[in-house]
Amino acid sequence: MTLAQVAERAGVSRSAVSFVLTGRTDQRLSVETTERVRKAAEELGYRPNMTARTLRTGRSGTVALVSDFVSSTSHANSMVRGALDALRERDTILFTVDTQGDAGQEKQVIDSLLDRTIDGVLYASMFTRAVTPPALLTQVPFVLLNCVPAVGVARAVVPDEVAAGRDSANELLRFGHRDHIWFIGTLPPGVTGGLSWRGWAPLALSERLEGIRQALADVGAELAGTQMVDDDWTTEDGREAVTRLLATGAHPSALICANDAVAAGAYQALHRAELRVPEDVSVVAFDGSPISRAIDPPLTSIALPQVELGRRAVELLFDKEAQPVIHRIAMTMVRGGSVGPAR
Amino acid sequence: MTLAQVAERAGVSRSAVSFVLTGRTDQRLSVETTERVRKAAEELGYRPNMTARTLRTGRSGTVALVSDFVSSTSHANSMVRGALDALRERDTILFTVDTQGDAGQEKQVIDSLLDRTIDGVLYASMFTRAVTPPALLTQVPFVLLNCVPAVGVARAVVPDEVAAGRDSANELLRFGHRDHIWFIGTLPPGVTGGLSWRGWAPLALSERLEGIRQALADVGAELAGTQMVDDDWTTEDGREAVTRLLATGAHPSALICANDAVAAGAYQALHRAELRVPEDVSVVAFDGSPISRAIDPPLTSIALPQVELGRRAVELLFDKEAQPVIHRIAMTMVRGGSVGPAR
Repeated sequence: MTLAQVAERAGVSRSAVSFVLTGRTDQRLSVETTERVRKAAEELGYRPNMTARTLRTGRSGTVALVSDFVSSTSHANSMVRGALDALRERDTILFTVDTQGDAGQEKQVIDSLLDRTIDGVLYASMFTRAVTPPALLTQVPFVLLNCVPAVGVARAVVPDEVAAGRDSANELLRFGHRDHIWFIGTLPPGVTGGLSWRGWAPLALSERLEGIRQALADVGAELAGTQMVDDDWTTEDGREAVTRLLATGAHPSALICANDAVAAGAYQALHRAELRVPEDVSVVAFDGSPISRAIDPPLTSIALPQVELGRRAVELLFDKEAQPVIHRIAMTMVRGGSVGPAR
Repeated sequence: MTLAQVAERAGVSRSAVSFVLTGRTDQRLSVETTERVRKAAEELGYRPNMTARTLRTGRSGTVALVSDFVSSTSHANSMVRGALDALRERDTILFTVDTQGDAGQEKQVIDSLLDRTIDGVLYASMFTRAVTPPALLTQVPFVLLNCVPAVGVARAVVPDEVAAGRDSANELLRFGHRDHIWFIGTLPPGVTGGLSWRGWAPLALSERLEGIRQALADVGAELAGTQMVDDDWTTEDGREAVTRLLATGAHPSALICANDAVAAGAYQALHRAELRVPEDVSVVAFDGSPISRAIDPPLTSIALPQVELGRRAVELLFDKEAQPVIHRIAMTMVRGGSVGPAR
């Protein structure tokens, strides 16, 4: 259906149709002509394109979430849910596009989105890391979601990982643990983030460790040690790491695991060594994923605030006064039965 | 940047610019003019809109995945990954849009997508169910992904749940289980799918049960019984259901759980009753999620073929010969240590 057909049916010029449907007010058209064009367009099912709608209303009612793997992995989806909730309140649609971390794909995607007129972009990462947003993004308002700018400044929303690290250590201190606390899940040098994520360094690791060390230092203590995983933060890697730790003759009173999956592996290794959680060894972890409820006893885990991250990113996107600074969102401890008194 | 500015810089009419940039071949323009327009457009960074590109190439290079909750929950994301893999081979971008199951939102989303020119739609559901695709979809090629048409016919891709049900029962029969097999996870009448999913009936439940009953009937056996969950297929609901079952004095030799989370709850209930998996009770489930690896012993689970579902849906979308029938994709058993010989 073309503009020309609408013009023919309404018995007016194509320019007149264009003026009416794009909502231009700098041209004088009679009310009757305007009505005739609108009626013809409706009868013919003519679909005025987005550019026209945008010109008329000043916005397209569409925001895009451009990410690496957010919608194609099961990790960070609640961020999308938080964003959707906040956008629905603003009568705005969200398009989600995963680039699979490929810069060429990313350029093509953003090009294609700009062609289609959008009001803004949430530039998101599956896990917290430093990014270099593509230059194209400067053409629209954008907010970094779960990532921070590698250089310069930008509006960004990330979890408060340092505070979460402190909370994990304080929970153990509260139960009398102190000198035999191990951290499970440092990553091999040069393989930061696991091979599966192309060497991206997750800020979660360094910041959680920093918080843990701060809280222990506050009481004059320090970690008994850190145990590296072979590759990634999976249950299998966690099991192997804790099995190796126990084989060294170490007697941990508590383990702080890099995430819930690593903690699930720690449970398996402790179980095989006939050590009970929490009677013999306490365990605390990060993420608050369904795994934390599935393992037995349920795990004390400090939950990623994914819904809140998504919601805050949308609020910043629509807040014209928002400064280009990093906003840190608190993580919440969900207690299970995995922490007990130090023996 | 407007067409008029490109025309001015190139020293040609606006019509000439339009003809060149939309790739129209029914107008005679000199090679020199064509080159001058292209050069001016490039120098000015003029962005020809998608409609123009579509007119020129016959396709926009964009497919949309419209779903209920696929990218905002952590359940079905691998479907998106499968679709992305298959689309990248076709140099096509995927836009994902979640409607949160709201019909008004869905209409708005599809309208908006059609405005932006797309080559086709994957209409997806978070879990397998019957759907009524919106009428608007008939304007573009579409494939139902992880759902089937409630009425009529359409191209659709779903997991082969009946075969998975048969496989689960046959695995237990192979280990000598027969007359004391219980199914955990039927849903309360009128609450099908759990309150959290607005009463949508998951086909997975009825079809898995049908397959289980077929395989047992083949050897002249039947289920010892089915145990209902209070609300949904969660770890907590699974634990409560198995706790109630054991309280009736039942002595199951094996449990077939509706999904991995329910099986995790079954482990917890068995553990509290001092029953070991698999020495006292064998457990098998469906999904193949990370939970199946996190619990101890790792669970024998029949995995949803999510990547393959996404990939096949894209293949059908681009296959002009594809018939409007339902394609069933095999589910694969991943064996853990949760099935042992019947006592």
